[in-house]
Order: sequence, then C-alpha cells, then structure tokens
Amino acid sequence: MATQPPACPRRLLPLFLGLFQGALLLFFTFFVTYEKPSTPVDDVNLVANQLHGIFPLFQDIQVMLVVGLGLLLTFLPRYGFSVLTHNFLLLNFSTQWALVLQGLLHHFHHSQVHLDIHNLLIAEFAAVTVMISVGAILGRTSPCQLLIVATCEVPVYLAAEWVIITHLGVLDVGGTITIHIFSCYFGLGVSKALFGVVQPPVHPKETPTPRSDFTSLVGMLILWVFWPSFVAVLCQPGDAQHRAILNTILAMSASTVTTVVASSLLEKNGKLSLGHLQNGSLAGGVAIGVVADMAMPPVAALALGSLSAVVCILGFRFLTPLLAKKLKLQDNCGIHNLHGLPGILGAVASVMVILVASEPTSSSPFSQVSPSRGNASEVAGGLWGDRGVRGQALCQAAGVAVAVSSSLLAGLLTGAVLRLPCLAQPPERLCFDDSLYFKIQDQGESPELGGTTEEGALALKE
Amino acid sequence: MATQPPACPRRLLPLFLGLFQGALLLFFTFFVTYEKPSTPVDDVNLVANQLHGIFPLFQDIQVMLVVGLGLLLTFLPRYGFSVLTHNFLLLNFSTQWALVLQGLLHHFHHSQVHLDIHNLLIAEFAAVTVMISVGAILGRTSPCQLLIVATCEVPVYLAAEWVIITHLGVLDVGGTITIHIFSCYFGLGVSKALFGVVQPPVHPKETPTPRSDFTSLVGMLILWVFWPSFVAVLCQPGDAQHRAILNTILAMSASTVTTVVASSLLEKNGKLSLGHLQNGSLAGGVAIGVVADMAMPPVAALALGSLSAVVCILGFRFLTPLLAKKLKLQDNCGIHNLHGLPGILGAVASVMVILVASEPTSSSPFSQVSPSRGNASEVAGGLWGDRGVRGQALCQAAGVAVAVSSSLLAGLLTGAVLRLPCLAQPPERLCFDDSLYFKIQDQGESPELGGTTEEGALALKE
Amino acid sequence: MATQPPACPRRLLPLFLGLFQGALLLFFTFFVTYEKPSTPVDDVNLVANQLHGIFPLFQDIQVMLVVGLGLLLTFLPRYGFSVLTHNFLLLNFSTQWALVLQGLLHHFHHSQVHLDIHNLLIAEFAAVTVMISVGAILGRTSPCQLLIVATCEVPVYLAAEWVIITHLGVLDVGGTITIHIFSCYFGLGVSKALFGVVQPPVHPKETPTPRSDFTSLVGMLILWVFWPSFVAVLCQPGDAQHRAILNTILAMSASTVTTVVASSLLEKNGKLSLGHLQNGSLAGGVAIGVVADMAMPPVAALALGSLSAVVCILGFRFLTPLLAKKLKLQDNCGIHNLHGLPGILGAVASVMVILVASEPTSSSPFSQVSPSRGNASEVAGGLWGDRGVRGQALCQAAGVAVAVSSSLLAGLLTGAVLRLPCLAQPPERLCFDDSLYFKIQDQGESPELGGTTEEGALALKE
Repeated sequence: MATQPPACPRRLLPLFLGLFQGALLLFFTFFVTYEKPSTPVDDVNLVANQLHGIFPLFQDIQVMLVVGLGLLLTFLPRYGFSVLTHNFLLLNFSTQWALVLQGLLHHFHHSQVHLDIHNLLIAEFAAVTVMISVGAILGRTSPCQLLIVATCEVPVYLAAEWVIITHLGVLDVGGTITIHIFSCYFGLGVSKALFGVVQPPVHPKETPTPRSDFTSLVGMLILWVFWPSFVAVLCQPGDAQHRAILNTILAMSASTVTTVVASSLLEKNGKLSLGHLQNGSLAGGVAIGVVADMAMPPVAALALGSLSAVVCILGFRFLTPLLAKKLKLQDNCGIHNLHGLPGILGAVASVMVILVASEPTSSSPFSQVSPSRGNASEVAGGLWGDRGVRGQALCQAAGVAVAVSSSLLAGLLTGAVLRLPCLAQPPERLCFDDSLYFKIQDQGESPELGGTTEEGALALKE
Repeated sequence: MATQPPACPRRLLPLFLGLFQGALLLFFTFFVTYEKPSTPVDDVNLVANQLHGIFPLFQDIQVMLVVGLGLLLTFLPRYGFSVLTHNFLLLNFSTQWALVLQGLLHHFHHSQVHLDIHNLLIAEFAAVTVMISVGAILGRTSPCQLLIVATCEVPVYLAAEWVIITHLGVLDVGGTITIHIFSCYFGLGVSKALFGVVQPPVHPKETPTPRSDFTSLVGMLILWVFWPSFVAVLCQPGDAQHRAILNTILAMSASTVTTVVASSLLEKNGKLSLGHLQNGSLAGGVAIGVVADMAMPPVAALALGSLSAVVCILGFRFLTPLLAKKLKLQDNCGIHNLHGLPGILGAVASVMVILVASEPTSSSPFSQVSPSRGNASEVAGGLWGDRGVRGQALCQAAGVAVAVSSSLLAGLLTGAVLRLPCLAQPPERLCFDDSLYFKIQDQGESPELGGTTEEGALALKE
Repeated sequence: MATQPPACPRRLLPLFLGLFQGALLLFFTFFVTYEKPSTPVDDVNLVANQLHGIFPLFQDIQVMLVVGLGLLLTFLPRYGFSVLTHNFLLLNFSTQWALVLQGLLHHFHHSQVHLDIHNLLIAEFAAVTVMISVGAILGRTSPCQLLIVATCEVPVYLAAEWVIITHLGVLDVGGTITIHIFSCYFGLGVSKALFGVVQPPVHPKETPTPRSDFTSLVGMLILWVFWPSFVAVLCQPGDAQHRAILNTILAMSASTVTTVVASSLLEKNGKLSLGHLQNGSLAGGVAIGVVADMAMPPVAALALGSLSAVVCILGFRFLTPLLAKKLKLQDNCGIHNLHGLPGILGAVASVMVILVASEPTSSSPFSQVSPSRGNASEVAGGLWGDRGVRGQALCQAAGVAVAVSSSLLAGLLTGAVLRLPCLAQPPERLCFDDSLYFKIQDQGESPELGGTTEEGALALKE
C-alpha cells in the first residue's frame, strides 16, 4: 500500500486546472454573452417550443455521458472512482475548452459569442471525442495526461469537423465519422506513441470482477436506452428526426440480438462474454449515426445493426489480440472494436445508401436530411445540387479519410507530448488503482465492528 | 464449479436467434417501410410537435424496461447478469417479433407496413407482457425456454388485446387488463405446466443478500419514478393525459405510504420487509392503469393505490405460500401479487367508476377518454353511444374474463412446450447461477494482489 | 446482533402513517378535485403543449429526488436501505402533507382545491426541504422522528415561502433561499435541539467504505445531470428558461472543475476526497438558483459556480469541525456546506446582480424574470415598479433573514419535540445500522453454498 507518488507533479493537476479556469473566466468576461431576449410574443412561444423540443434530448445525452459512459468504464474493479471522476472531469473541462475554441473559430462575427443550448451541445460533442479516445489508455495514465489529451484533441476535432461537415459537406447527423471514427483513431494514435513498442503483460487489476462487470453492464444499458437521443438531437425536427430515432432503435435492437448469437457461437461452451455484451449491443448505435436520417428502408437499419455487432465482436476476439501482438498496440477498453470498426462500416453504408437511393424521385434521398451538425446547413445546402449523387458518395469517403488521417497524426503527436516526465504517468505497479488518486478509507480502521457484514469480516482478516 | 451443461443445446440459442434475425430481415425487406415524409410545412411542425410530445415518454418507458425492471429482478444474488441480460434480450426479441406479427395482423392494408414510433410502442407493450410473465419461472429456466415463452405469448397477447380493446371496446389506457392481468396469468400457467406437481424446496441461491436487495430496491425506485409515463403515453394529449399522470402519481404515492404501514404491521418486531417495499410501492401503478384517464375524483386514485398495496402485501404474506402449498404453484418473483391482484382490483375499480359516474352530465364520464391503446379508437368510439353505462361496465368485466382465460390456457400450453428436453432446462443444482450462462472471471486468478480489498482477501481464502 | 428495540414504539410508525393516510383520504374526498376539462379545441392543444413542456422536467426532478438524492446519501455503508427508504417515504409523506396544507392555505377560493401538476410540483418542493433538513440528523434518528420533522417543517416552509416570495416579492426562481437556505438552517436547528451539548465520537459505522462511496458518487452524478431541470422548471417558458438552464449548466461545470482543484490542494499528497467531490460538484447548482434567470452575463454563472465549490469544500475542511467543537453541532451529511454556505453566496450574488444591472436599459434586468415560484406572479408583478432596484436588493436580503430566522427557530422547536421518548430514538450502539429497521437476510443461513463467490466465502468464516 506504499503508493508514494512523485511529490512534485501532485501539484500540477490543480495548477493546470486552476489556471485554465481563470483563463476561462477572463475569456467569458470579455467575449461571451447570451443572445438578446426575443421581444415579440410569438417569438417567445417559438423559443419555448424549440427549447421543449431539444432539452429532453440534451438531458438524455447528459445522462449517457455522465452516468452511462462512466459506469460502462467501471469494469476495472479497483478503478471505479477514477473512471467516474476522470470521465466527469473530462466532460466538463473539454466542454469549456470547446466553448472557448468554438467562440474563437466559428462565432466571432460581432466580437461577441452568443451562447445558447445549441452551442453547448456542439461543445459537448467535442468532449465526447475526448471521453472516447482516453478509453485506449485508461488505467495507465494520470489525470494530468488525460487533460493534455483533451487540450490537444478538442481543437483538432473542431478543425476536422469543420473540414468534414462544413467544407466537404459530408452527411453525418449522428457523428459516426466526426465523433466515433475520429476519436477512435486519435486514441489509438495516443496509445501507440505513449506506450511505444513495449507490450506490457495483462495487469492483475485489469481483470473485471463480477461486481465491476455488473456496474459496467448497467452502464451499457443506460447508454443503449438513450442512444437514439444522441443520434437524433441535431436532426431537423419532423420526419427526419422521427426516422433517425426509429432507425437507431432498430439498429441497436438488431445489434443486441446479434451480439448474443455471435458471443454464444464464439465462446467456449456457448457461454456469453460480458465484454461482448457491454460493447456489441452498442455497436449498432455507432454505425447508424451516419445514415440515420437518410431515406433508406427500415431493413437497412436492422442489417447495419446486426453487421456492426458481428464486426465488433470479431474485433474483440481476433483483431485486438492481433494488433497487440503485431503492432504492440494497447487498446484498454477496445475502442477500436466499438467505435472504429462499426464507424467505418457505417460510413461504407452511407456511401451505399447514397448510391442506391439515386433514383430520380423527389430530387434526392436527402429531402429531409439535416446537415446541421456543425452549423453547416448554409454551405452544404448549396453543394448537393451541383455535386450529384456520386459526388456526395465520394465526399463521404473523403470525410472518412480526413477523419482517420487527421486523428491518427494528431493522436501520435499528442501521445509523444504525454511522455513528458512532468505529467506523472503512474508506474506499472500502481496502474488501475484508485488509491493513487483518491483518499480511500482504510477498511482496517474499524475491526471492532464484528463479523456481521463482509466489510467487518474482511477487516478482521487483515 | 463443475457446471458442465448438456453440450448439444448450447448451440440451440444462437441457432434459434440467428434464424429469427434472418427471417426478420427478410420480412422487413419486403413488407416494412417508413411513411412518406409529410410535405407541407404545417405538417412538418405537426409531426415535430407530436414527436416532442411522445418521445420523452417513450424514453422513460425504455428506462423502466431496460434498467428499472432489470435491476428490480436482481434480487437473486448470483443471477444478476442473467436477469439483466435475459430481460434485455427478451425486450428486443419480443419487440421485433411483435412488429412482425402486428404487421401481419393489423396493418396489412396496402401490402406494406408503415413503421412509426406509435407502432414501436405497441410492440414494446407486447414485450412487456413477456418480461412480466417470465418472472414466475425466473432462475429455473434456460434462455431458450424464455425465448419460446416470448414466441408463444406475443401472438396470443396481440389477439387478446384485439379482442379486448378493439372488439369489446374495453377502456384500459394504462394496460392494467391487457398487460398486467394477461401477463400474470400467462406466467402462472407456464409455471404450473412446466414445474408440475413437484414443489421444490427453497433454493439456497434464491435468498437475497443485502447487496442484491439493494440493487433491486434501486430498480423499484426507477420504475416508480417513470411509471406515470407508462400509464399516460397512449392517452389523448391534453386533459386526459394530464389527469392520467396525476392519478398515477397519487396512486403510487398512496401505495408507498401504505406499504410501509402494512409491512411494518405484518412483520415481526415492526421491521420492514424489502420484498414488500420492492413490490407494494408499485402496486398502485398497476391498479390505476385502467381508470387513470377517467373522470373520477383524485381521492379515488389515492384509495385505489392504498388498497392495492395492501392486497399486494397480503398476497406475499398469505396467498403465495398458500398457492405453493395447495396448488404446488411456483411464482418466483411474486408476479401474482404485483400484477395479478392489483390488476383485478383496478378492473373492479373501473367498473365502479363507470357505474358511479353515470350521472347525466356532459354525455359520459369518458368525454376525454382515449381508447387508443391498440388503435381501437374508431371501433370503440362508435359503441359507447349504443351500449350505455351498464353495457360498458359489463364490457370491462368481460375484458378481464377474456384476459384471464386466454392467458391461463395459452400459458399452460406454452409451459407444456417448455418441457421439451431439447430446451435445456437447467438442473436444480445449477439454478439461480450466472456461471451456467456467462463466462465469469475466476476470482482465484489473482491471489498475488494482496489483502487490501475484499476481492483480494477472498481470493486468498480460496 | 441482538438489536432488541423498545417494543412499544414499533407500532407508532404504522399507527401514525395509517392515521395520516386516512385523514388524507377524508380531506381529498371533500375538498380536492381536478379542474374541469377545457372544452374548446384550441385549449386542448394549449394544455397538451404546456404539459409537454413541464412533464419532462417534472420527471427529471423525480429522478433527482428518488434516485439521485437517495443514492447520494448511501455513503453510510450499513445504512443503505434506510436512507433509500426513508428518503422515499419522506418524499411521499411530505408531498401529500404539503398538498393538504397548500389546499388549506392558498387555494381555498371556491371551497374546492383544484389539483394540477403545478400544485404537485410546489408540494414536492416542500418535500425537498424536509429531505435536505434530515441530512443533518441522518443515522441517529428513527423513522418516527423523521416523520415528525416533516410534519413540523412543511407548514413552516409554506408560510415562509409565502412571506418571502408572495409578500416580500423576493426573486428566487431556483429555490436557493426558500428551499436550500431554509432547509439547511431548519436541519441544523433540529440537530442542535435534539443532540444538545453532547458531542458523540465518530460512530464506527459512519465511515464510508469504497462501495458505499461508489453508490454515493453515482447519486451525485445523477443529481448533477438533472439539476438544470430543478432550477428551470418554474421559469417562464422561452428566453428566461433557456437562460436559467444555461446558467445552471455553466455554474455546475465550473463547480466540478473547481472542486477537483480545491480538493487536490487541500488534501494530503494531492489526492482527491470523495466527500468533496460528492458535494462540491453540486454547490454551484445550489448557489445559481436565485440568479439563474436574471439578465446577467454568462461569466457570472461560472464565477458563482467556482466560488461556491470553494466555499463548500472549505466548509467541510474547516467549518464543520469547528462547529462540532465549539457549538457541539452535528451535521451528519454536511448540509451546511452544500446548502447553507452556497445558498448564502447565491443570495449575495443576487443582490449584486440586481444592483449592478441597474443601468436604464429595457426597464429592468428582470424583463423575463419569472416570480412564479409560489404563484406569486400577480403580487410581485405589481411591486417592482414602485420599489426600484435598491428596494429589490433590500428585499433579497430580507428574504434571507426571514428564511434563516424562521427556519432556525422552527428547527429548534422541532428538535425539542423529537426528544419525546415515545419517538424511539435509537441508542448510539444501534445507529447507522439497517438491521434496526429492516428484516435483513442473515448471510450465515447458507454456508453450504461453497466458496465460489464472496458471500459464500464470508458465510463460511462466520
């Protein structure tokens, strides 16, 4: 229990966060304001209706990120406090950081940034990429390192998103390309550059216990339930949003059933693997994002969901060990299987949907498509007409290429920065352990409690 | 730990599920489509408003079914993964199966099924009946058996619902008769036919531990919170929905207080029983469903909630042991006390409300009543005028009779099917144990971790 | 394990609750009704829209109170059932009691009380004050004592709220003054009068274990996510509500980051304290309530959130031990640090915002301000014009004074009542222990299960 960490970097975390918070206050003081209240009565009703339309979805997404994703990552049995807290801290830090950058990048029209719930949502999506990426390096990194990842990833994400959505006009309402693919390869890049060529043995504290698998399973269920809100929140209200919700539900439902089939077939004795369940059931949600609001038949959503679950589970079973062996690539939470592979599958599906649906009916398959992720409506709106169906399909592919290349490159650079000794990477012996970062009550303190409950019983043994 | 299950049936689960998923894809390919987008701008706003009205309630119901009900059933201490996963799988499988059948039964007007969130909701309600029914046989059945229950129950449910709601015009906005009563007696029928005349002793792994009771209590709280959405989702928007929400909250609030009173009076020393809390607090929600949107005074909701909690707890204390002794009837989760008795109480209440409220005021007590559960509005709408108050009261009673008789009969038949040896019913020794179906990490793998936390300590002892 | 409680008071709880429930039924029979259904079609749409606007927020608040607050309090390792159940019971009892009193106090215009979701919400806010107050005495009190607290606190709260909001016209849309400050000092008053001059040593069962800290942390995250709904639910729809939501999110985000900074700086070795995280992250939400819908710049919300987290953590570190030593004041959950100090900070901020924003722009900073908490709109609406900016600032200060003085006084009196011997205060030895109130399965019952899981292993040792 002699977890004596290096003394100096202990102060780096509060120093870094404190300075950031101060700078944020300064930036907000001079540059950020709310929009003027809308004056006419009709406008008030309109604002109220828009808010009532978006706010429940926004809350659903908050539950996903704070509670669902946090619990999903608690499969590490002695690292529960760390994953919940780091996940929570990264969400807040990255959102604030994205608000600042977003202000600088996009909204600097009238010298003031007008903050509304839509901006906040876009900033949260930037935070999501960070929260996914760090899954690759979870447990072997210090909070300082995670904050550096956030600091580096958010601006690259915003730039990549601008290129992909606004400039290229890629259709990606649920963030499959911009969020899932991007964050996955960023995380893998960081992991590669940080851990280098050494492949550590499986850490003894890395193995889930029944209890930690249980909380992780609950986290998956929470994510599963609210995922349609994540995909559909930026759709145009009306039919497109309705369709995006239904497609997501169908895809995730097919994923769930297929996960049970695939896991049962792959595992010895036909038993189910909890790791497969925790990931495969969500794979459909990752893949469907890019096509959720397109005019495709419901069967496409089902097929995509099934396929992505299969790909995800095959990834866990075969690809992850292969990458670990050949490329010495660590991916602690298997983000490549949950976000990378299904993301690419979804992107391929989007190309196919665009090409197949090119019959000369009502102008295009995207009559109800919303390119509003990234405020790109005005730009993208003008492009479809010119570019045609093949052009749009090409664009989707280009979007994937931009996402993968920019994230891999930036991730590798970020991983190199993380090797700075001042960032207090924990020694292997102390990895995956809450006691390094949290003041945990020593259970041996109260042996006089007697043997009625297990804590007491355990205390007696120690 | 030598859980060596029969080798052959191990492959039945993926085979059955895989074939089903393939058939589903085929069916969807040829028969299911989304509705055409609505073209005029006003319609788009209307669609958006309708979606914003129903979607938050839909999400609430999803949380109830996936997280709330799943956790409620985790009172079995070594069966947590199984109940969460089987519950989750049954929801998805049954919903898909109900979508197929619904398409075949109801919507085959234009050779295509038009899928929308309303259809999906109706299909989920079919899944709910399965998820309730299997409570009677939980822990002593294999996943294959549970899927057979779903396969048999969903078509019977859809037929019974059509008879009760559409044909008879029974008023049951919250599903008390069609969902709760039906699923309860279906489950009891299955249990009777499956387990026959042998009454097994209480299984040692059936007794809840403090930890498993804790997660179950949290599940109850989640169900309690979102229950108003379940009851009110199919009400007509406006006053009827408002009243249904209030009535449900009042009934469940009264249930909660009464549960504490009744449990404290019945138990030795005035201590509370967790089993009573986990069920009694929800009884009011079951009973109120059938009268929630009727024009009755608020006190009726309170009284019904109180009464149903009393009935539920008396059922646990006296009726369940009696049925087990006299009829050799197993009811592992006590679904008869939570769904059967309060359901019948609610049905009786609906008859009384209809009879009492027959004063010649604004035409009928149902001026705002929505018979939309099961898309029965057009049929039921025409009947009220002719049938009068007494006729409607009689209808309610007939609805209960149809629900009880059809479910009991179908349940008994289904239970007989479950006795097929190929369905791999687990031997008594291996019941209530996750290790039969899940690859669980052996905790003895990491004894070198030392004695700082309990897992380590326990590993040392083994 | 010989938890032999006094035999007689065992029957007091069901007696008291049963009588109350009966009286409630009587009161509802004669005095409470629903509003007549609105007849014209336009009204129905309006009612539906209003319901769709408020109901998702209402459900969010229910989740906070039932699940979030319940779990937050489970940091007491052997008292989980008690805190979840007592919290749940207090919510229901106090809401019902507040509905009765509210009816008597406010709505007795036409001899009938018209119940709607808005009334219910106001009644729930009364319940919230009780649920916060009992935090000061948690673990050392019987359920009977808690119900007496509710019985005494709800009428005083309703009176204080009437004085503060309706009579004085204080602006407090998120309940900072009326709910948080009031409940905090009420709870401290009760604690002082009940426990008197003796300062008990730290109870051995009071120390959190990693598992109890984990569930408490999850509870905090749930509260954090849904807090914006709590603050904004009574805002005027439109811009004011939008601003209240954004301000709350900003404040809580700043709180979270600042909590990590402050806790890391204060604790030895830079480790984080879970107690700090569980409370500091929420402090911003407490403070922002009183200014959430005012026309202030976003930076003010950030600054207020940061400051309140600092104040909260400093309170835990220095003030609570000081109060315990000097004033012999027990505050088991630290409600003074989470609700008292940030509440006062928020009130000070509201004075400053009112004074600073007094530039002669669009009439006042409150052009969109909703004083609807407590149905005070008509009264308060008339006062602003006359009283001017300084007057309003003075009013805010007066509101705090009324809240603190009335709650302290009433709390002291209530605490004196709680010393009645018939209320069965548990002896120190049996405090913080579920087994006093719950029938808990003895884990020693099933030693034959073998050593595969920890329960079995532990059973073997006993």
